[in-house]
Amino acid sequence: MYGAVIHAPGDVRYEQRDDPRIEQPTDAVIRMAATCVCGSDLWPYRGDDAIRRPRPMGHEYVGWVEEVGADVRTVKPGDFVIGSFMASDGTCEICRAGYPSRCVDVVPMGALGAQAERLRVPLADGTLVATPGEPDADLIPSLLAASDVLGTGWFGAEAAEAGPGKTVVVVGDGAVGLLGVMAAAARGAERIIAMSRHADRQELARRFGATDIVTERGDDGVARIKELTGGLGAHSTIEAVGTQESMLQAIRSTRAGGHVGFVGVAHGVTLPGDLLFYSEVHLFGGPAPVRRFLPDLIDRIWHREIEPGLVFDLTLPLSEVAEGYRAMDGRRAIKTLLQP
Amino acid sequence: MYGAVIHAPGDVRYEQRDDPRIEQPTDAVIRMAATCVCGSDLWPYRGDDAIRRPRPMGHEYVGWVEEVGADVRTVKPGDFVIGSFMASDGTCEICRAGYPSRCVDVVPMGALGAQAERLRVPLADGTLVATPGEPDADLIPSLLAASDVLGTGWFGAEAAEAGPGKTVVVVGDGAVGLLGVMAAAARGAERIIAMSRHADRQELARRFGATDIVTERGDDGVARIKELTGGLGAHSTIEAVGTQESMLQAIRSTRAGGHVGFVGVAHGVTLPGDLLFYSEVHLFGGPAPVRRFLPDLIDRIWHREIEPGLVFDLTLPLSEVAEGYRAMDGRRAIKTLLQP
Repeated sequence: MYGAVIHAPGDVRYEQRDDPRIEQPTDAVIRMAATCVCGSDLWPYRGDDAIRRPRPMGHEYVGWVEEVGADVRTVKPGDFVIGSFMASDGTCEICRAGYPSRCVDVVPMGALGAQAERLRVPLADGTLVATPGEPDADLIPSLLAASDVLGTGWFGAEAAEAGPGKTVVVVGDGAVGLLGVMAAAARGAERIIAMSRHADRQELARRFGATDIVTERGDDGVARIKELTGGLGAHSTIEAVGTQESMLQAIRSTRAGGHVGFVGVAHGVTLPGDLLFYSEVHLFGGPAPVRRFLPDLIDRIWHREIEPGLVFDLTLPLSEVAEGYRAMDGRRAIKTLLQP
Repeated sequence: MYGAVIHAPGDVRYEQRDDPRIEQPTDAVIRMAATCVCGSDLWPYRGDDAIRRPRPMGHEYVGWVEEVGADVRTVKPGDFVIGSFMASDGTCEICRAGYPSRCVDVVPMGALGAQAERLRVPLADGTLVATPGEPDADLIPSLLAASDVLGTGWFGAEAAEAGPGKTVVVVGDGAVGLLGVMAAAARGAERIIAMSRHADRQELARRFGATDIVTERGDDGVARIKELTGGLGAHSTIEAVGTQESMLQAIRSTRAGGHVGFVGVAHGVTLPGDLLFYSEVHLFGGPAPVRRFLPDLIDRIWHREIEPGLVFDLTLPLSEVAEGYRAMDGRRAIKTLLQP
């Protein structure tokens, strides 16, 4: 089969890879309906993560089960399934506590390479969720979004304790930030302030529920948030970038006793202990426990209550995956959907 | 009157200071029954906080109200009172949300110097709590502990979400750490692991409810905690030191999805963003909202359910305050009580 392989920064190729097969009795193999490029795929693409040898790329996926191992019980060939970007057993103490992306047996799906025609999914029972039936074609982008960016935005909003009566700030206007806006709205937040400088993203943020847009960044951004919140800062802040500037902006935009949910994959971030101590904000984040959210998210998408697939503003054949990366790297696209 | 003044690292003097007086209609002036030296007082004493000019010291206090300003309603002359180490108005949005130590009008009591014969307490209605009557003399150390270290341990346990069914690790065996053990026990924690190398502190930790003692530190300490928790780490960790080593040890000792409550005043701490991201622990701490806990803590002490005053293992006349600092700096005392 064919799939994406990164060879060096800026060098993603569509090339032949080994066909996936059942290796463990808990595996499933799926045929891809759609996959996509994640903001976090840009870290190695931009040279911020080391690339020691050519490796497959992609960790977001929806498709049809082709084959399952002998121990798989909850999905069967023909099912249309979505899974998390982290495979998890669903049975360990950490999974049962609600954090499957830190499962004791976790397998990062990026290592298996979902930007491909087919994919082996380990720990299928703990990882995959089947839809109620064959989805309408127009639901596929939204279902695909649930595999990572929607669930990650959902986690950001949960970690930030967004909810009724709260003012929520969202730092970052990529797919995760925009879906963080959607998640905050779904949780009933009173006011949602999206920080964005791009007209198209501002528009999507408003469509997803943002009540205010702030274009300033850094100190000016923090000052603007304080101005909008009676000098106190937001109750809840979703950080969806992962840089030093965005993390500090998120913490400093939040009032004492408030909550920062950070879901941008941290790169080069070091947080001063005294800032954390005296800001007295709750800080929580990490790889989103997408699997925990999937049944609810699929239900909302299936009933057309939410349309997270709107974050895909570029659709390409999988064979043009390299262009998909280029478009996102150049901020010509928010998120690229790839069709095998 | 006389009180403690720090002139330089290692140089705390008992000397004449201006008599406190009512400056604002919301002030009270109290006559000290007892005061003490805090672990955080050792930061300037050891030269870790700059001392730009001689300044009064101390922020923990119990005593009798002598005089109140015209607007004070909740305490009156003759009342025996305890207050937080941070004066707060009790009415702002941050206070009402439960974080009075970050009140918009907050006054750090250290700036007023509680290691003295008398003390002005700003925002008396929001800061002081009167006991039900004149306390027995043997209750005074415990009531004094409630002014900071007990409330701070209580906050550490709350921030760490210590409770039934949980394994709690306590990093730090100073007064705050030991009272963090007490707080975790009061919250019903199943297992409480105190990290301590000192026999006397280990004994007190056990008396306060510790079920296990770990003497290892750093990597070895983390490994030992993992060993005791099925490889996963603790559900809840109370950090009560404030150094880089103790913060990293606390985070690394906690399982994914668990909670770190940090109450050691952070000094020279920088937390790597990727560690925070991939450890996926809740992190919360800062100056403890002691005022919120005071009514409950006073009630528990009054009814002799808890005896936090046991952390005072040295009692000196206030005039010997310099020796009180020396004894704590040299680890000859856990905590020094000072009698005017």
